[in-house]
Amino acid sequence: MTREPCISILGLGLMGASLAMALRKRGYAGRLVAYARKEETRAEAVAAGIVDAAFDDPDAAVKEATLVVLCAPIRSCADLAADIAPALQPGALVTDVGSTKGWICRQMAGLLPKGVFVGSHPIAGSEKQGLQAALADLYENALTVVASHLDVPEAAVERVAELWKSAGSRVCRMAPEDHDRMLARTSHLPHVAAAALAKAIGRDSAEQVGAFCGTGFYDSTRVASGSIEMWNDILRTNAPAVAEELRAFKLEVERVYDDLQAGRFGDVATFLERARESRAELLKGRGPGAGAQK
Amino acid sequence: MTREPCISILGLGLMGASLAMALRKRGYAGRLVAYARKEETRAEAVAAGIVDAAFDDPDAAVKEATLVVLCAPIRSCADLAADIAPALQPGALVTDVGSTKGWICRQMAGLLPKGVFVGSHPIAGSEKQGLQAALADLYENALTVVASHLDVPEAAVERVAELWKSAGSRVCRMAPEDHDRMLARTSHLPHVAAAALAKAIGRDSAEQVGAFCGTGFYDSTRVASGSIEMWNDILRTNAPAVAEELRAFKLEVERVYDDLQAGRFGDVATFLERARESRAELLKGRGPGAGAQK
Repeated sequence: MTREPCISILGLGLMGASLAMALRKRGYAGRLVAYARKEETRAEAVAAGIVDAAFDDPDAAVKEATLVVLCAPIRSCADLAADIAPALQPGALVTDVGSTKGWICRQMAGLLPKGVFVGSHPIAGSEKQGLQAALADLYENALTVVASHLDVPEAAVERVAELWKSAGSRVCRMAPEDHDRMLARTSHLPHVAAAALAKAIGRDSAEQVGAFCGTGFYDSTRVASGSIEMWNDILRTNAPAVAEELRAFKLEVERVYDDLQAGRFGDVATFLERARESRAELLKGRGPGAGAQK
Repeated sequence: MTREPCISILGLGLMGASLAMALRKRGYAGRLVAYARKEETRAEAVAAGIVDAAFDDPDAAVKEATLVVLCAPIRSCADLAADIAPALQPGALVTDVGSTKGWICRQMAGLLPKGVFVGSHPIAGSEKQGLQAALADLYENALTVVASHLDVPEAAVERVAELWKSAGSRVCRMAPEDHDRMLARTSHLPHVAAAALAKAIGRDSAEQVGAFCGTGFYDSTRVASGSIEMWNDILRTNAPAVAEELRAFKLEVERVYDDLQAGRFGDVATFLERARESRAELLKGRGPGAGAQK
């Protein structure tokens, strides 16, 4: 269990509120404070015992903290960091939950003292947003990538890793740029594909077409209902890697398109088989519990 | 409730076994018989009370039937129809559950007497296969399209529509070719996109990559684990319509690829917003209960 005397969570949306709930559920006994923009969110979080105190000002929310977790869309995290920098205690660490790590690690190097920021990315989430959607077991058995550049002390990285283990997560370390290339493939590409699918399917008479949409459509496009601000920041801060993955995806789509047009159905069958095998291999590599959602 | 004295289901996979279970659960009191290739499946279906009798020969399974439901991959249905044609009772009707309707309606015109075949497509299913995956409520509130060419008598179409209502489904009628264009968009396109996604993501080191796959990947690619034979038949019998949909999809993917490459992030944000709105519109059009899976 993490030994931080006071953890401050900036942003009580799905990710932030779920982190607070997870820490409490698993026995974190220190002080939990938060910043949230909306009064309603602050009142609800305190009333429900999710945090001990909630502030309307990020500065006030980090004064006592030994560890600060930025739980906002990636580019807002940079604004928050600039804001809180003067209020941080000596020895306090800052981490985040963003889905890209290179951009934020580079930004933080200019905004916070050396060795204070360690990036985190818990691979968990939902297309749902806000405190209402928060779950105490969101991070349970999820994998969290802890990523920082080489000038961050080992002890700081360890403290951030402990935070995620205390929330029920498994932890691995990666260089920020390696993380971004990997997640461009496993998460950002599926998101863009789902969005392109939803847009193409609804390109005219969406409501009438909807009557003929089954569970295949529903699941294939689910993530396309996610937060626009969050996803726009992700794609913006990882554009070259996502474009590279889209290129590989486009090649697959073009090949099956050509095969269908030319009536090469043996090749279409091979494509379906390879895709099925590929998914089975990918699922084999998922960690314990990672398939528990289904 | 359907008044057929005896319904025969040819094929006790997910679709066929679920139909038998749904009819029984909702109070169908007539005789239910089936054909299944595997002895194990026949024994299990009879032991579990899913059907009254199960035969190893399609001919034997249709002798008493007033309504025959072909529950096999599309092209196997044509073989089954050729097989059972001489054994059908006068007045007996034949339908199916295939995901494309034009090809099968055209085939049946050459294999069965005029007015005997009415196509059906219950928009329900799962990537799972076999009797073990069958569910008594698979068709509950699902939409079933009943499709036939104009030379089929109204009374025959009505009897087939009654079958699906008796299994808990809503029913609508469409011309086979209209159905195929619509489903190419709402079902076949998402399937091909999911398969292309699974193949692109696992294009190398799939097992290592799998550790970084979250629920977004899981849902976006779920349907890619479906039956190869079934999906190969679907794509084969609806290739031009699916290619047309893939073309529209490719345009979306290419546009977002170009925007990412050129750093046009305002356009990327607009794309994400439109996709989200499109999905919301499509979901609005889904029928009552159709979202109950989630």
